[in-house]
Amino acid sequence: MKFSRRSFLQQTAITTTALAVPGILSASLPSGKKKAVGLTKGSTILFQGDSITDAGREKTRQLPNSGGSFGGGYAFLAASAILQKFADREPVIYNRGISGNKVYQLAERWQADCLELKPDILSILIGVNDYWHMRGGNYDGTVADYERDYRKLLQDTKMALPNLHLVICQPFALPGTSAVDNTWTEPMLGYQAAAEKICMEFDGIWIPYQKIFDEALKYAPATWWAPDGVHPSMAGSYLMASAWMKAVLGEDI
Amino acid sequence: MKFSRRSFLQQTAITTTALAVPGILSASLPSGKKKAVGLTKGSTILFQGDSITDAGREKTRQLPNSGGSFGGGYAFLAASAILQKFADREPVIYNRGISGNKVYQLAERWQADCLELKPDILSILIGVNDYWHMRGGNYDGTVADYERDYRKLLQDTKMALPNLHLVICQPFALPGTSAVDNTWTEPMLGYQAAAEKICMEFDGIWIPYQKIFDEALKYAPATWWAPDGVHPSMAGSYLMASAWMKAVLGEDI
Repeated sequence: MKFSRRSFLQQTAITTTALAVPGILSASLPSGKKKAVGLTKGSTILFQGDSITDAGREKTRQLPNSGGSFGGGYAFLAASAILQKFADREPVIYNRGISGNKVYQLAERWQADCLELKPDILSILIGVNDYWHMRGGNYDGTVADYERDYRKLLQDTKMALPNLHLVICQPFALPGTSAVDNTWTEPMLGYQAAAEKICMEFDGIWIPYQKIFDEALKYAPATWWAPDGVHPSMAGSYLMASAWMKAVLGEDI
Repeated sequence: MKFSRRSFLQQTAITTTALAVPGILSASLPSGKKKAVGLTKGSTILFQGDSITDAGREKTRQLPNSGGSFGGGYAFLAASAILQKFADREPVIYNRGISGNKVYQLAERWQADCLELKPDILSILIGVNDYWHMRGGNYDGTVADYERDYRKLLQDTKMALPNLHLVICQPFALPGTSAVDNTWTEPMLGYQAAAEKICMEFDGIWIPYQKIFDEALKYAPATWWAPDGVHPSMAGSYLMASAWMKAVLGEDI
């Protein structure tokens, strides 16, 4: 017997209705007016960002499509899903996140770590360190610097790669955890608004991770999703990957 | 607008029909007569096996639900999905695969690495080294030894943990790769048949990985799924995780 994806869902309705995922994503992602990006043969995807993207990847060989070069975060999970679900397109996927990066540090390494890779889809998650390091007194950049530097980075990128699909991920922080308390919420709103504004200016796909994690708190506490409030757990990373897949490629994982 | 999982699938029908996954799994997994295992609060899941399960995990702390302790293989991908999709049940998931293990080596460490963890679901993938190391002249066990040792291991396990759900994974090898050629196929059939026979004896859930990978070859060559024919790529690991989720928990990922 062959069975379709839909009849399979019907058979397991009792199990699936109890799941957290569909509820979280349907409540927090836009309603699907934006068309999913299509992958063609050899489409190149680049994940960029800070430690959340880095997730312990090796940085000597930095191979595409290779587990060790991807670390153990949302980029590994999303890339694994893409490489399987779109195997016939042979996508080429890179992770170039670097722990601790702020937006100006992306700019410093952009030629080698973005432009030369010629991505068809560029996904960026940056901003939590722009706030965190300033809060900690190790950095004097403001939210205005973040917005200006981010805009400049994307202007340069679009100039070099005009057909690029942009994916801008909302920076996030989860209070009630080992590193984050409620005093983060208000200032983070500024960075989040700046990222969203820039995303709209460049017609990017917006992934509202703060909203997604806020919704996820209905199912489990903040420490389940990110023990320190910044770095996602396995569950948090999977939630991020599934949101990415749905928002960018129109795929459930 | 809220939209259900089903209406989302309808909206994206054009995209999803081109995917490899549903075809691979519907063609290679049983038709769903077997009921999916339900997870309750605090359900404990243990992944056991060799390097395919190990996938570079750290072995000092060996924490449950922790990325570093899971390595970068199918166990990490499946566990991440479970921890997200069943967040409200707070499952506890361990990886105790060890690179190079044959079935008798599982037995040597079974008290600490299985029985004391008291899993509700125990998943085992073992067998490729029982053949590979014998073929290489570093081991003199036969397929009869594999079957006998495997049966004894499960008898002891069921004695100690009578309510355990067993998941037995078919050992596999993909010819046309750097370590595996066509001379592996015939002898591997013996190990695969022994594992399936034992799975039936203990009323386990069978995951036909050889069949699944054979089906996947319709979409991409063997090296896409496992460059050396034994250790899966990111794509191969995701395929394994999605098959595990569907066969054991009745879930698409």
